[in-house]
Amino acid sequence: MVLDRGLVFMSDTRTNAGLDNISTFRKMTHWEVPGERILTVMTAGNLATTQAVISLLDERTKAPDDREPSLLKAPSMFQAARIVADTLKDVIAKHNKNGQQAASAFNATIILGGQIKGGPTRLFLVYPEGNFIEAGEDTPFFQIGEMKYGRPILVRAYEPGMSFEEAMRLLLVSFDSTLKANLTVGLPFDYHLYSDGSHELGKNGRIGVDDAYFQTVSQGWGDALKTALDSLPTFDLD
Amino acid sequence: MVLDRGLVFMSDTRTNAGLDNISTFRKMTHWEVPGERILTVMTAGNLATTQAVISLLDERTKAPDDREPSLLKAPSMFQAARIVADTLKDVIAKHNKNGQQAASAFNATIILGGQIKGGPTRLFLVYPEGNFIEAGEDTPFFQIGEMKYGRPILVRAYEPGMSFEEAMRLLLVSFDSTLKANLTVGLPFDYHLYSDGSHELGKNGRIGVDDAYFQTVSQGWGDALKTALDSLPTFDLD
Repeated sequence: MVLDRGLVFMSDTRTNAGLDNISTFRKMTHWEVPGERILTVMTAGNLATTQAVISLLDERTKAPDDREPSLLKAPSMFQAARIVADTLKDVIAKHNKNGQQAASAFNATIILGGQIKGGPTRLFLVYPEGNFIEAGEDTPFFQIGEMKYGRPILVRAYEPGMSFEEAMRLLLVSFDSTLKANLTVGLPFDYHLYSDGSHELGKNGRIGVDDAYFQTVSQGWGDALKTALDSLPTFDLD
Repeated sequence: MVLDRGLVFMSDTRTNAGLDNISTFRKMTHWEVPGERILTVMTAGNLATTQAVISLLDERTKAPDDREPSLLKAPSMFQAARIVADTLKDVIAKHNKNGQQAASAFNATIILGGQIKGGPTRLFLVYPEGNFIEAGEDTPFFQIGEMKYGRPILVRAYEPGMSFEEAMRLLLVSFDSTLKANLTVGLPFDYHLYSDGSHELGKNGRIGVDDAYFQTVSQGWGDALKTALDSLPTFDLD
């Protein structure tokens, strides 16, 4: 999500290969040169694909002089997005070409956001086809994965001027709506709050199953929604 | 939706064969023998399939002595559900077997609700495979079609004891969340409020684009949601 003050990232950690095979994996990754660049990537889709993409991107940053192209050497966010997109496309193509056909597709979608010194803070959505779009004023946030349940509250309540504290509350309510309806999304949630112009990793952490604040929001939201409904006039049957 | 006082049905009227081919069709149908039985059917999915199913069911009610099985002669809601389910299954099978393969599936899903004298009010969800499930205390409402956006508010705010006026407000807010996010759902909406034990068509009608009440709810809901969010504590960054 793009705010006036920076970027807010949040991802869940639930992965599944069927209802009887549920695991927890981190879906958020950072690459940082403090004071110069910070890149945050979130992934959704086939876990083998997304882990391969992250590993490839990461290996190249470990020895950036030997291996090209590296996210740490990309001159702009746009070029960084191209690197991520090409890597994603190549990994999917490789899985699709060789060996046994899988029942499910190897597709994955990626959100990339961050800032590189000399350029603005930018947020991209990368498609499995290897192309990507950028967030703008009219579409200031992206969702990937199981997105429909949590979308209505984002559409209604997002405001570019909101604080990080307010944005976290909004995202947790949005995720909670999905939690209540769908087994493929689960706690804990990872988050990262990037302050525009800082060029370094911002406040970040993990919200676990026992998190007191999340419990308050989740339980309070049901009552708050009912109060909101009651504030509207009822339908007139006559 | 099953309430203590009866059933509430609501359906939109948008159908599409691609983004550039959008039309308005009624998706709610009633069969009634006043004082003896009332059956309401709502459909989602392939329009050719659902129209064929409705036409077949309707033809058999026009001359029930000549044509079996007729919804007007079904001895119970369970038997009525079997008739609807068998008809749906047969229509899909016929389309799939003969002639040109279509790009999209011929699938459709149906909600059937009502009451037949001597039995309780019941609500069924009929799958394209020809089997069906019934609503119960734990799952007191069904959604078909584009259901994810509107689900969170139903899960949170449904109460079996609510009035018809409150239920209409809830359903309109739920539909509005989908309207805001998805082009495949559109006004006008048809509704039917069935009073348990009446065995006749209840209050019903259509909510159009210009409906003043819907405008009030749609515009008021955005503000009400923001107020609801603000009633929760913000995230503590320290």
